Amino acid sequence: MKLQVAIDRVDLDDAKQIAKQLDPFVDIIEMGTSLVKDYGCYALAKEKLGLHHAELLLDTKTIDEGQYEFEKGYEVGADILTVMGAAAMGTLTTTYDVAEKWHRQMFIDLMEVSDAKLQQITSFPNAIYGLHHAKDSQENFNATDSVAKFHAVFPNIRRINVAGGIDLHQAAALKKQGLVETVIVGSKIMKAADPVAAAEEFMKVVK
Amino acid sequence: MKLQVAIDRVDLDDAKQIAKQLDPFVDIIEMGTSLVKDYGCYALAKEKLGLHHAELLLDTKTIDEGQYEFEKGYEVGADILTVMGAAAMGTLTTTYDVAEKWHRQMFIDLMEVSDAKLQQITSFPNAIYGLHHAKDSQENFNATDSVAKFHAVFPNIRRINVAGGIDLHQAAALKKQGLVETVIVGSKIMKAADPVAAAEEFMKVVK
Repeated sequence: MKLQVAIDRVDLDDAKQIAKQLDPFVDIIEMGTSLVKDYGCYALAKEKLGLHHAELLLDTKTIDEGQYEFEKGYEVGADILTVMGAAAMGTLTTTYDVAEKWHRQMFIDLMEVSDAKLQQITSFPNAIYGLHHAKDSQENFNATDSVAKFHAVFPNIRRINVAGGIDLHQAAALKKQGLVETVIVGSKIMKAADPVAAAEEFMKVVK
Repeated sequence: MKLQVAIDRVDLDDAKQIAKQLDPFVDIIEMGTSLVKDYGCYALAKEKLGLHHAELLLDTKTIDEGQYEFEKGYEVGADILTVMGAAAMGTLTTTYDVAEKWHRQMFIDLMEVSDAKLQQITSFPNAIYGLHHAKDSQENFNATDSVAKFHAVFPNIRRINVAGGIDLHQAAALKKQGLVETVIVGSKIMKAADPVAAAEEFMKVVK
């Protein structure tokens, strides 16, 4: 299983500093939507961040203008870009085509996607499907249960990622479950007294 | 009727230059999602753009993290911020509360919103409801027809805006129809040989 660390709601300089520290040993570094919308993709270019090992995910949450946003994101060096499953099918097919053309990756954020819509968007074999707990939602989220339910309905989807308040205990349970490609951890690392040490703890659990 | 000019997919300096030229006489200047995601909200602060007359709309297309994104957007001086109707109800109620608290405005982008969802989100009396033709959609869009149909189903919604390839002819038809508060024009102004002259033509039609 891989570890993606989500950096969000911090100053650009702080984001850069922690990204550099995490780069040598985590799998994926996510620059969250707050950083994209506060500072823009140009400021988050892979070269400007100085990443050499980890993959870079820009959480663009594309919902329209798929070609423009994905080409821009890959141009600045993102390995993975996100599109909302709630976007129009035209947007999803466009972003997938751009991702395939660039040999990069597309992450479909499944937040607020109805079951009917979900059935329509399972046709992207190389896409990553992201089970995601909306930050604005107050409901509880059990990661392994959500993954098990999703896998039962969509057994053919091979790349599943999961996010939403994941702690060490849940990460270990997901590793044991064996269905998830990447676990996304935000505050449990970023709000730890020592984020680098916290990330190292998570890496021990996921590998 | 008011005129909102959408500036999109241009370099930041070009966006600033045209915004300054349009500021004295158009009602609302929109900094499109491409500018928000390429350069970030800080770079699009009202003060940095040097706007004195027109209202500023930042097309943030918020889909989660409503409180964070709306507070940030209003902090940098936006008069109007956009939230996706496809967002969770929790996000919409949060952004509405922030807008009311700041005495600013919330624009709900109705792209890809199901009829069932639409029924749930009509309860924001001061919100602007944006009929919007997805740039990634290939279907034709008749603005007055779309507005008439929407008004027939939701007669209590008083603030309706409309966007999507609006030309002078359609703007005149919308003005005559009398249901729309603001018409949003992008390429018909921005891609004109003389955008300022084109905007002046639209202003004559909408007033």
